[in-house]
Amino acid sequence: MGRWEPNARGRLQQAALELYGERGFDQTTVAEIAQRAGLTERTFFRHFSDKREVLFTGTETLQDLLVRTVAEAPDSAAPIEAAAAALTAIGGAIPDRELARQRQAVIEANAELRERELIKLASLGSAFAGALRERGVADLTASLTAEAGIAVFRVAFERWLTGDGRTDLTGHIQESLDELRAVTAGR
Amino acid sequence: MGRWEPNARGRLQQAALELYGERGFDQTTVAEIAQRAGLTERTFFRHFSDKREVLFTGTETLQDLLVRTVAEAPDSAAPIEAAAAALTAIGGAIPDRELARQRQAVIEANAELRERELIKLASLGSAFAGALRERGVADLTASLTAEAGIAVFRVAFERWLTGDGRTDLTGHIQESLDELRAVTAGR
Repeated sequence: MGRWEPNARGRLQQAALELYGERGFDQTTVAEIAQRAGLTERTFFRHFSDKREVLFTGTETLQDLLVRTVAEAPDSAAPIEAAAAALTAIGGAIPDRELARQRQAVIEANAELRERELIKLASLGSAFAGALRERGVADLTASLTAEAGIAVFRVAFERWLTGDGRTDLTGHIQESLDELRAVTAGR
Repeated sequence: MGRWEPNARGRLQQAALELYGERGFDQTTVAEIAQRAGLTERTFFRHFSDKREVLFTGTETLQDLLVRTVAEAPDSAAPIEAAAAALTAIGGAIPDRELARQRQAVIEANAELRERELIKLASLGSAFAGALRERGVADLTASLTAEAGIAVFRVAFERWLTGDGRTDLTGHIQESLDELRAVTAGR
């Protein structure tokens, strides 16, 4: 193992996002990412298995957080309340809008990455429903709560990225949840 | 152009689904599909651009139906009512559970097809939101109604395919819509 590099992971992520944005994902090599970050390829591979993982490692962390938050909601919480708590926890765990924007632009520019992102979201939805069923929530209710929760997150995330920045992601999630309630009530 | 073949399109679809199920999608050729259907390759290409289109041509028809139904809902209909009418129309347009099951099994067995299916669903969601905005529905409301509508459809479709067959797809859509209302009301 090499010597300890301060915040190597963050520097590699930042360098990768810059290069993917400048040259395109396919045209960027791990060697270039390491060089831009002032680190070695060896250090890169201590943190990421490949250049795609730089973009998707965060999704797994969010999925763990979501599942844990659903599991830890009080027994008395209705499914939608457990889901709201989980979405709010996720919202608080993605603080950097500029990084999120860069990542989104890279993904939208590449068909393979867009597909990957959709698969990750589908997997997030399955894990979400699974966590609700673990609480004893019935199948249909768990599936709909999870799918509606992912819908709320997608819409809120998109509005956060394209908005004026005055409302944070958690605020957008709350707003979207309220709007979903109004919509389904037929208002 | 060759002579007219009775129900050539349906025969080709049925033959393709059988072969994809028996051999796998990747291992099946257009020549084999045509032969199984008792038709020529030339006839196949009059109906489909390639062997993947056999699986996804229906999605475009459904998208057109959904957009048209949203557009034709009465002015007085709330967004969720226009969405419910569109989902019900789609439900009525997919009558054959056995074909739908065969198609789903083929898609689930192939990563590329699963990705394609997710992209088609995302595109269906965008068209759905666009049709609602055309009615003058505000951005946030249109996005959430469309995403929630797709969520309801996904859950209902899955339950229809795996259920005992006593409830039709339209019935499952109605049940899922009711359940979404109950969930968001915190019940």
